[in-house]
Amino acid sequence: MKRVKLTVAYDGTNYCGWQVQPNGITVQEVLNRHLSELTGEEIETIGASRTDAGVHALGNVAVFDTRVRMPGEKFSFALNQRLPEDIRIQESKEVPQDFHPRYVKSEKIYEYQILNRRFPIPTERFYSHFTYVPLDVEKMREAGTYLLGEHDFKSFCGAGAQVKTTVRCIHELNIEKSGDKITIRVRGNGFLYNMVRILAGTLMEVGSRAYPPEKIKEILEAKDRKAAGPTAPARGLTLVKIEYPEELG
Amino acid sequence: MKRVKLTVAYDGTNYCGWQVQPNGITVQEVLNRHLSELTGEEIETIGASRTDAGVHALGNVAVFDTRVRMPGEKFSFALNQRLPEDIRIQESKEVPQDFHPRYVKSEKIYEYQILNRRFPIPTERFYSHFTYVPLDVEKMREAGTYLLGEHDFKSFCGAGAQVKTTVRCIHELNIEKSGDKITIRVRGNGFLYNMVRILAGTLMEVGSRAYPPEKIKEILEAKDRKAAGPTAPARGLTLVKIEYPEELG
Repeated sequence: MKRVKLTVAYDGTNYCGWQVQPNGITVQEVLNRHLSELTGEEIETIGASRTDAGVHALGNVAVFDTRVRMPGEKFSFALNQRLPEDIRIQESKEVPQDFHPRYVKSEKIYEYQILNRRFPIPTERFYSHFTYVPLDVEKMREAGTYLLGEHDFKSFCGAGAQVKTTVRCIHELNIEKSGDKITIRVRGNGFLYNMVRILAGTLMEVGSRAYPPEKIKEILEAKDRKAAGPTAPARGLTLVKIEYPEELG
Repeated sequence: MKRVKLTVAYDGTNYCGWQVQPNGITVQEVLNRHLSELTGEEIETIGASRTDAGVHALGNVAVFDTRVRMPGEKFSFALNQRLPEDIRIQESKEVPQDFHPRYVKSEKIYEYQILNRRFPIPTERFYSHFTYVPLDVEKMREAGTYLLGEHDFKSFCGAGAQVKTTVRCIHELNIEKSGDKITIRVRGNGFLYNMVRILAGTLMEVGSRAYPPEKIKEILEAKDRKAAGPTAPARGLTLVKIEYPEELG
């Protein structure tokens, strides 16, 4: 028996998110099915991040256990021949049997893409959130500084989340503008339900000058979802990478 | 009566190209239909570039004549409310009645996107051509120098084209690499049928070292389509911009 770690990229547009659920097709379900067909075993993957419907990934992580003698690194090739075009394994490798992608400490990097111009660009429509309201990136950056570090992010947690604590630590929050594309990049030790999308929606309120940058302090202190801005649409969000300690990664 | 110029962006994935044809839905057909509904007239647009099935545009150009009293610049807003998400007018403006988007001299800019890495990225699949064969960008740039300027591009002209001359002038040919994305950007006074895709396919043969860069000279001299490399897939190609003289642009 060995445990194999997969780095999974997907276009979330046509999926009801990562996690298996009764209401529609999910990335995990498709992955489980093709892994089961490939191995002849009944495979259930364990995923690192349960991304929402419409959210994309360049590097979500999943593990599974198998008795198949294929070397860990060959699973990427074998799976990619079977998977639909909107899911592609980027890497596969054997990891220690006790490696659990959610319980092992990790850093996650997310990017939220905003297209800020007069009219939408059709080829960007599934991978960015469009707004014609001019956004002041400097003000968004100033607001971002209040979010850095360890905070209780309860105000940035979507309803329905069941967690012991809403304290999280954001290690990096960069906002880059290139032409009419704005990218919010966040790196942290974990994110609450809808947290990155609520961060993005709130930073956009600052960018449009609906909120002054300092309002972020108040929002954090309120510990109330209603204090923050709207949840930005899923299509703009991509899980870029999950970093584990070197011996596992 | 006035003539209105439209700058049209589209995702070509789901269209049989620009030009109206019997075999499937085209961008021009959708545009004509919505313009006719909007104006109550029977509108037939004249397009600048008849892009192929699957080719994208950020700035194709079309004109139409109308008696409707709406100011030229308002058509963009009115059309965008009616058009499907994969077509968006970027600008509309009144132009002189005799402005013809194909007969007035122009410069066209195309970009061909290549994703060059071990495995495909699902979110890029409709907008770039994937190859895992490592491409040597320096060699591609060297090959590109032979294509600059005025040449008979007969070897780079797809079958079925009816043109008086296959002489064209390439004013700019840049090949940029950013991470695992390679972008071939060409600017010229006109391009033959499939020319940019054959250029891209041929430059990729140089990048993979199937052809030495100097072979481009031979290919040009052969004046034979069979001398050049394959036609690269449509999905990687985008018509970026068409530049007209200032008084029209």
